[in-house]
Amino acid sequence: MKVRLLTYTPHPIKAVFTAARTCYSPSTPTEIWSADAPKERMHSLIDKVIGAGHQSVLEHISLTFSIEGISRSCSHQLVRHRIASFSQQSQRHVKVKEGEWVLPPSIETNHSAWEIFQSTLKGIQGSYMRLIEMGVHPEDARYLLPNATWTHLVMTMNLRELYTVCEIRLCTRAQWEIRGVFEAIKEELTKVEDLKGFATYLQPICFHLGYCPEPKSCGLLPVKGSPTIS
Amino acid sequence: MKVRLLTYTPHPIKAVFTAARTCYSPSTPTEIWSADAPKERMHSLIDKVIGAGHQSVLEHISLTFSIEGISRSCSHQLVRHRIASFSQQSQRHVKVKEGEWVLPPSIETNHSAWEIFQSTLKGIQGSYMRLIEMGVHPEDARYLLPNATWTHLVMTMNLRELYTVCEIRLCTRAQWEIRGVFEAIKEELTKVEDLKGFATYLQPICFHLGYCPEPKSCGLLPVKGSPTIS
Amino acid sequence: MKVRLLTYTPHPIKAVFTAARTCYSPSTPTEIWSADAPKERMHSLIDKVIGAGHQSVLEHISLTFSIEGISRSCSHQLVRHRIASFSQQSQRHVKVKEGEWVLPPSIETNHSAWEIFQSTLKGIQGSYMRLIEMGVHPEDARYLLPNATWTHLVMTMNLRELYTVCEIRLCTRAQWEIRGVFEAIKEELTKVEDLKGFATYLQPICFHLGYCPEPKSCGLLPVKGSPTIS
Amino acid sequence: MKVRLLTYTPHPIKAVFTAARTCYSPSTPTEIWSADAPKERMHSLIDKVIGAGHQSVLEHISLTFSIEGISRSCSHQLVRHRIASFSQQSQRHVKVKEGEWVLPPSIETNHSAWEIFQSTLKGIQGSYMRLIEMGVHPEDARYLLPNATWTHLVMTMNLRELYTVCEIRLCTRAQWEIRGVFEAIKEELTKVEDLKGFATYLQPICFHLGYCPEPKSCGLLPVKGSPTIS
Repeated sequence: MKVRLLTYTPHPIKAVFTAARTCYSPSTPTEIWSADAPKERMHSLIDKVIGAGHQSVLEHISLTFSIEGISRSCSHQLVRHRIASFSQQSQRHVKVKEGEWVLPPSIETNHSAWEIFQSTLKGIQGSYMRLIEMGVHPEDARYLLPNATWTHLVMTMNLRELYTVCEIRLCTRAQWEIRGVFEAIKEELTKVEDLKGFATYLQPICFHLGYCPEPKSCGLLPVKGSPTIS
Repeated sequence: MKVRLLTYTPHPIKAVFTAARTCYSPSTPTEIWSADAPKERMHSLIDKVIGAGHQSVLEHISLTFSIEGISRSCSHQLVRHRIASFSQQSQRHVKVKEGEWVLPPSIETNHSAWEIFQSTLKGIQGSYMRLIEMGVHPEDARYLLPNATWTHLVMTMNLRELYTVCEIRLCTRAQWEIRGVFEAIKEELTKVEDLKGFATYLQPICFHLGYCPEPKSCGLLPVKGSPTIS
Repeated sequence: MKVRLLTYTPHPIKAVFTAARTCYSPSTPTEIWSADAPKERMHSLIDKVIGAGHQSVLEHISLTFSIEGISRSCSHQLVRHRIASFSQQSQRHVKVKEGEWVLPPSIETNHSAWEIFQSTLKGIQGSYMRLIEMGVHPEDARYLLPNATWTHLVMTMNLRELYTVCEIRLCTRAQWEIRGVFEAIKEELTKVEDLKGFATYLQPICFHLGYCPEPKSCGLLPVKGSPTIS
Repeated sequence: MKVRLLTYTPHPIKAVFTAARTCYSPSTPTEIWSADAPKERMHSLIDKVIGAGHQSVLEHISLTFSIEGISRSCSHQLVRHRIASFSQQSQRHVKVKEGEWVLPPSIETNHSAWEIFQSTLKGIQGSYMRLIEMGVHPEDARYLLPNATWTHLVMTMNLRELYTVCEIRLCTRAQWEIRGVFEAIKEELTKVEDLKGFATYLQPICFHLGYCPEPKSCGLLPVKGSPTIS
């Protein structure tokens, strides 16, 4: 898996600050934008607004990622997030190459499982190629292809939706591969000076709630209303 | 594949008519609703409104379908439609059974292709079961499972989105399986007295435009601006 | 203000239950739907799923309301909810009548304020009518019309969005008029046997979180992390 | 009215090109992005894709505008576009100042209408201020305020939605003020080297269809299926 931030809204802190101030200020957005408030003051207002649950101002920040070499199981889950834009490599139009598949860690570390996995995938790839040689169109031959098959996609998501999606996908209960995608996304934001403050907002939901909403906790935080030792 | 209309907004014609009249009338929606206009008058107004491109009134009609025994390739495409709600059987939690897979017609009608397809799928199913017996969790063993594997889902979509989606998916160029889903959906609407009028709105985009928007036409209608023999 | 539930997805409990079961069951949606599970069992599963924060199954229930005699201030806020469908009476096309305006309670109970309010509105109505008589198009004359002016609309919203919107709009800090709209909506659900169970889910966010997320609480529940007397 | 493009996705042509190529290419998005194709080749592919009706690749471009000094009638229409993000000055929290209102051209050019309009607005402003002085909260006093009252907002919209919205709002039948907003938006794009190519896509729907979809045309293009003199 490879995740890269390709491009994003420039001046993200000023954009969020301008949006937040516009709601409560007699000044116009261009006045607020041009006033160039000090970064600390902008961050302090944004923290207050987000802390009170008003995440809508984060929608003004758009982030475009390249997500490469994930499985089709993972991409099927990923595209369920509806407030986002996806351009994904098509299995109808692009032929799949041997060896381009995702290996689950639980299989990688289990030698006999690994042997079954690899030989089955090689068998599938052989049958897939034979069908195509026989004249079957790739869009039909692909019905044989496994979930493990690599796919690549460009994903654009605004920062508010990313905040919400990370609440679910950074949970330790999330499926390991999609959790890895959002950990890599958070890591990408951390590398950018203007985005690293926002990266700290990307947390599993229990961090935001102060408790685990599921019936059983992973141990990170107690479930809602559980007795606490103090 | 099996597609069934499970439930839908009752009084759909009156609901769309009330919405359309509300915009231009001094009467209130409950007055329009209670006046019980004759069905022909309601249909005539709706036809006029839709014909002029104002489909938003169709959003008030919600339709819930059961879609069963489609491939994961098909469901991956289906869930890309973002103005819809999906509850899909999980391969993380439900084990897959032998023989529950979709056979593309181009393979069904080609005996040698069919033999390769069937034996490959049986091999995959055997490996999948062996991995599970070895203690691999189904959510990881499923990385072997092919696109052909059956999935079931409940889909709710409003009538405006269905109108738009059918423009794309009823095109003769659409992938055969997802085209089959929307042909079956249209067929389901045709069976219901109050919905069959709306079913006639569900057409490939060329029917609505009066021409094919693609660079090459399938022959149904000419491409935009092509010379016509008259 | 008058709020009426015009129509809604029939069999809402079975629809939500079928959607929830489909995710984790080897049975197909039509099998689950046809099995007609006892209502208590359905409600118990739904409570568990919603309690754990998985509200997506509520999206399969669509509710269509008539909302009449609200102010344009209120409708401007209302249409900000983006996962909903609105058909609203147009001030471009429908002439406004005298006396059709919303009176804020704080003005109703203050005699001098009430006199200013009423006489100003009458003056506006007179000017509006004079402009129209002079040949100004109603769509331009309406620039004079006050926020208080009545508007009517048909709103369709799914139950998950209604759940989320009520978290914000049933808060005691929400603006009084829009809070009244959602209290009336909740009341409408309470009157329907199949919806009254869902009505209990419609609560201000503090009820769901167990604390007030704002910096200062209205007193209903303490703010996050405040010391509690026990 | 003042409209300014505050910020937008950098490298918009490369972002759209990368998204479009990803769907049909064996290369990964980062490979396509890094290859830095010549601008003419990128534009030529994008024109082909958009011409065939596949606008989804435009969603990767996000544009943030400041829209200032529009009427509340206009902002009420504007926020009906649901695939967009708005942060709007609040009349609950910000007091309105005299003279900050929109004057319709049909009134500006009609002296007697202008006199009625101005004196009515001054009367309203006086009553509004008196109510506030009497202790009425601005959020209730604003019920008197006219549609003409200025509002300011920050709007973020992706380029695909802007394409669709301009189809409706650049129509000569659109209400003059909101049409002005989108003409100003198009003008802002025209000023930016990397966006001016996209600005040419922003057209009333008749330009895209090749005919007017309404029952009566404004004359720009004939209605669908009307006889043409040739």
